Amino acid sequence: MIIVLKPDVTDKQIQYITERVTDLGLKSMVSKGIERTIIGVIGEEDKLRAQPLEAFPGVEKVIPILKPYKLASREFRPENTVIDVHGIKIGGKKIVVIAGPCAVENYDLLLEIAEKVKLAGASLLRGGAFKPRTSPYSFQGLGEEGLKYLHEAGKKTGMPVVTEVMDTKDIELVERYADVIQIGARNMQNFNLLKEVGLSKKPVLLKRGMMSTIKELLMSAEYILSNGNFNVILCERGIRTFEDYTRNTLDISSIPIIKQLSHLPVIVDPSHGTGKWDLVAPLSRAAVAAGADGLLVEVHSKPEEALSDGAQSLKPDKFSKSIEELRSIAAVIGREM
Amino acid sequence: MIIVLKPDVTDKQIQYITERVTDLGLKSMVSKGIERTIIGVIGEEDKLRAQPLEAFPGVEKVIPILKPYKLASREFRPENTVIDVHGIKIGGKKIVVIAGPCAVENYDLLLEIAEKVKLAGASLLRGGAFKPRTSPYSFQGLGEEGLKYLHEAGKKTGMPVVTEVMDTKDIELVERYADVIQIGARNMQNFNLLKEVGLSKKPVLLKRGMMSTIKELLMSAEYILSNGNFNVILCERGIRTFEDYTRNTLDISSIPIIKQLSHLPVIVDPSHGTGKWDLVAPLSRAAVAAGADGLLVEVHSKPEEALSDGAQSLKPDKFSKSIEELRSIAAVIGREM
Amino acid sequence: MIIVLKPDVTDKQIQYITERVTDLGLKSMVSKGIERTIIGVIGEEDKLRAQPLEAFPGVEKVIPILKPYKLASREFRPENTVIDVHGIKIGGKKIVVIAGPCAVENYDLLLEIAEKVKLAGASLLRGGAFKPRTSPYSFQGLGEEGLKYLHEAGKKTGMPVVTEVMDTKDIELVERYADVIQIGARNMQNFNLLKEVGLSKKPVLLKRGMMSTIKELLMSAEYILSNGNFNVILCERGIRTFEDYTRNTLDISSIPIIKQLSHLPVIVDPSHGTGKWDLVAPLSRAAVAAGADGLLVEVHSKPEEALSDGAQSLKPDKFSKSIEELRSIAAVIGREM
Amino acid sequence: MIIVLKPDVTDKQIQYITERVTDLGLKSMVSKGIERTIIGVIGEEDKLRAQPLEAFPGVEKVIPILKPYKLASREFRPENTVIDVHGIKIGGKKIVVIAGPCAVENYDLLLEIAEKVKLAGASLLRGGAFKPRTSPYSFQGLGEEGLKYLHEAGKKTGMPVVTEVMDTKDIELVERYADVIQIGARNMQNFNLLKEVGLSKKPVLLKRGMMSTIKELLMSAEYILSNGNFNVILCERGIRTFEDYTRNTLDISSIPIIKQLSHLPVIVDPSHGTGKWDLVAPLSRAAVAAGADGLLVEVHSKPEEALSDGAQSLKPDKFSKSIEELRSIAAVIGREM
Repeated sequence: MIIVLKPDVTDKQIQYITERVTDLGLKSMVSKGIERTIIGVIGEEDKLRAQPLEAFPGVEKVIPILKPYKLASREFRPENTVIDVHGIKIGGKKIVVIAGPCAVENYDLLLEIAEKVKLAGASLLRGGAFKPRTSPYSFQGLGEEGLKYLHEAGKKTGMPVVTEVMDTKDIELVERYADVIQIGARNMQNFNLLKEVGLSKKPVLLKRGMMSTIKELLMSAEYILSNGNFNVILCERGIRTFEDYTRNTLDISSIPIIKQLSHLPVIVDPSHGTGKWDLVAPLSRAAVAAGADGLLVEVHSKPEEALSDGAQSLKPDKFSKSIEELRSIAAVIGREM
Repeated sequence: MIIVLKPDVTDKQIQYITERVTDLGLKSMVSKGIERTIIGVIGEEDKLRAQPLEAFPGVEKVIPILKPYKLASREFRPENTVIDVHGIKIGGKKIVVIAGPCAVENYDLLLEIAEKVKLAGASLLRGGAFKPRTSPYSFQGLGEEGLKYLHEAGKKTGMPVVTEVMDTKDIELVERYADVIQIGARNMQNFNLLKEVGLSKKPVLLKRGMMSTIKELLMSAEYILSNGNFNVILCERGIRTFEDYTRNTLDISSIPIIKQLSHLPVIVDPSHGTGKWDLVAPLSRAAVAAGADGLLVEVHSKPEEALSDGAQSLKPDKFSKSIEELRSIAAVIGREM
Repeated sequence: MIIVLKPDVTDKQIQYITERVTDLGLKSMVSKGIERTIIGVIGEEDKLRAQPLEAFPGVEKVIPILKPYKLASREFRPENTVIDVHGIKIGGKKIVVIAGPCAVENYDLLLEIAEKVKLAGASLLRGGAFKPRTSPYSFQGLGEEGLKYLHEAGKKTGMPVVTEVMDTKDIELVERYADVIQIGARNMQNFNLLKEVGLSKKPVLLKRGMMSTIKELLMSAEYILSNGNFNVILCERGIRTFEDYTRNTLDISSIPIIKQLSHLPVIVDPSHGTGKWDLVAPLSRAAVAAGADGLLVEVHSKPEEALSDGAQSLKPDKFSKSIEELRSIAAVIGREM
Repeated sequence: MIIVLKPDVTDKQIQYITERVTDLGLKSMVSKGIERTIIGVIGEEDKLRAQPLEAFPGVEKVIPILKPYKLASREFRPENTVIDVHGIKIGGKKIVVIAGPCAVENYDLLLEIAEKVKLAGASLLRGGAFKPRTSPYSFQGLGEEGLKYLHEAGKKTGMPVVTEVMDTKDIELVERYADVIQIGARNMQNFNLLKEVGLSKKPVLLKRGMMSTIKELLMSAEYILSNGNFNVILCERGIRTFEDYTRNTLDISSIPIIKQLSHLPVIVDPSHGTGKWDLVAPLSRAAVAAGADGLLVEVHSKPEEALSDGAQSLKPDKFSKSIEELRSIAAVIGREM
């Protein structure tokens, strides 16, 4: 950590800071430049991170040198983490597709969609039973009934299921039915929820918040990992920017960046990332080309009747065609689908 | 609601859409322009809002005319909502100051700060017992112990207390000690939490998410109101932008906008909004000048030892001086402190 | 255009507005809903666009139905525009690569890089003679000398050259040496410059501003087109967001969106879009997979000695390897390189 | 400057970097920590800033310690710069109001507005003769004719005039008529324009770009200062964010920040900053309360007929009332109007 001092810092202030650093068992090195004096601190940076150094008299700014996450970092674990969900490997050579409707609406429709996405090449089934909706007047999901349908449709089609949990008190319930527990973008910094799924035995699909940096996503993963659950799948799903043509701006760069910084698998959700079904196919191609370990795609057989997010749902035939293209792109970069 | 159709829309598609509108008990009016045909829909817009109209064949875009929130709107209730917290009125003529440390650290320090902010002119005491921290390795708050200290310090100094709840399962606990329940910025769209505090009898201080629009803030308030709790205080605390000199960009414009759109009181948190103690005084002046109903300020007697957010905490003497200035500005715009 | 009126609008106000609309030779239709009255306007929307309707008493908001650009739109010209630069087609089946150093530094180095990128598969040579630099103390480019070197290196290697013009008074000079005139991101809304290159006979490469929407990019293209120059190549090069790991956030979604909205070719600059050389290859793959008509890549044989943007420049061997991958991806989506 | 090295950096790489630093006449200090080695560089940071250090093998990131601007900094000149425009002081104790229409439309209307704003308390007259408009089909300003009207109206009412220049080739023309030359937000990084007004004898009003950080604004000021013109007035006019209720988000925090970082005066444009006339008064109060040295306000006697920006223009009576309030607020913070 580097502590940059103000031009008018006094010797007494410097002494106070260095003593404080020594108290924490760290070593400090004062270096007087022409225009600024800086203090370099050697030792466990975390000890110092907890101190409000910027509130110290004489301090201009504090610059951390190390990343604030550890367990999620590639330095902690150089090889890729591969997560096994009932035999399906996420993070390995094969690119995995998770597909299904935004919300579980009824059993028959869900099963119909499940069969179609399975046929097209999906490995896991997604569907929301608890839906985070901006308006209290929108459809909020079927709750436990939806979980049962999802579990049933997954069993029938031989696909493990992914579904979202929004509340710590629903974790046990969701764990009973889900194979992968999803933390939605709006809950990426719901730290209690992160801690609790960190205690779960089920893999966790952690979506990047629409207002969160890559570093913050990795810090949220760190919450789960540090509670003992190392099966975390990260998911890029678009960030909020000034561009209003799309619902969000899908940050394709985050894929190779996350692969550099972390050992965790990263998948992409082009449906939420764009909000428009006709952008899902080109952005899926882009995601795979950029190195994503998987895709999370909303598919609905009658999007114009969907109770949630119809505008961004692909029809099964378009989904199927999209998977074909992706297969060829995967091959180019030495992967499979 | 206005449905704008694609240039190549067919008569059959138009018919399908208008039939659908009629099915919902609404009236449609087709209007053919030179370059576009549009369908105007008359009736309860909410019925249509739930339909994924943008997924219909032939539809280019859908433009809502009405605001998606009702109970929170100024149209629903033209006069200002004034919330009574043990005799202190929030939203009335008097501008209210809520002050205290970011986190409750220990009882003696809390009491010392409480006495000082009371003396300087604060009406309510703030302090966190549950702290949402980006890193799992940072101080997470004292939990129930902190709530007890806060309650005790509030009683001793005669100030109602405001504290954050982060989890639905802690609501009962927090309600027991708090006079106002705070929903933090990261939980502004934790919809389960909103619903549950909507069932509480205690007033709720709802902070704007750092990447949420004013409309979304009002939608989140709608969640609380529609569950029966009309005592909602909104709080602007800065939004995330590309400017990185400050922790957030305090959106002062949101104050007069919220006063136009809603009857709910709005207060400002210049401490989180800037992240720097030396910007708190000028931004407090700006907030009061722009019409805020109150301020939420972090004050700490030893910021350089604070366990959380020391860099943005004012010392009691600076806080006291700031309140003096604000008193004069309040007078200019016909208010009091 | 739809004019949404305030809830308390008076009949006199409505009459005033409709008369005004009639004065412009347009037709208005008043439609009274339950909560709002709206006025639909039929006729040439542009006539109305120039009116400050939102300043009229009784008006709540004004919603345009049509896109504000015409000549740049796909509706104006359904087929793709293909631009011919000395026999090289941009916007056709073949994906075009423009490569070279950020700034022209000296002739020998430029020629060396030019030969290498040509060999690797580039069709056009890029290089800056006028450099927009944030700091007045940074290298500002060689000016006319740089243009001469560039022209010479282009002739020697058989590649047309692309270079930036920053000032209307340099247009004649730049036209003399360049085959394609580049308008940089910071000048995307330098409207005088746009008008002047609109009068040029040379194709224009127009970069998206880092804080400009896609609509604004197309409006800037409209400036050039409406002055008579239809040879405009659009370029996505990243937008400014809160994410600070990359220099900008490359908006890959903009590629399929621009292809939907406009007939103009669109290329991508992954070097500026990310600011890091090790992200250039994966983002190039993503851009091609998403449908880009070309790439603009910074290549430098000694990035660590470059006078500008060394950190984002690829070395020739990495560039060459990247082109190989792209060739295969292009084939998947029915294109060539 | 601090150079942070990669965990796997080799001794040879470290040696190469330190040699390079020595070649530039600077001193380097290598400091090996537990997880990272860093190199601190002592000496003129600017020499190193020009080097693409991040492109060096073994370098993870480079952290500058000093601000990249010098002449614009408070450290270079601790006391406030006060700019004298024909006897009107900008940056002194008195807060200055610059008002007038967005665009000069005709002489009579301009004179009418000028007389009214003068009466209300404005000291300078604003009005655009060259208008940067997003659409090529919008009113582009009257050009020289507009400049003449403005000059004439200024003379008649005894107010110096402020007007925008958009093109280097118009500088001489604008200088002839204007007392203060304005650089608009879209031209904040039109570096040639900055250099040229840096050679002018007239004061320059430099608006912050909607996509620019405070640091970049100061770098652009540095362009002007380093060319010899020290009479630069900075202007906050709103930045682009995701919030779409207002045209821009007025960054009130930038006022006290700029006063800390720089000696230059800073004024605020609440008209462009919000885009809505009914937000101009509260935001003007906020700006003055936060310490602005002046205001730039659009006033129009018939906003509903204005050829540009009618929706954000105040009527003269509202403007006059607003100035009254501001006078009292100015007094609170020890200033005058």
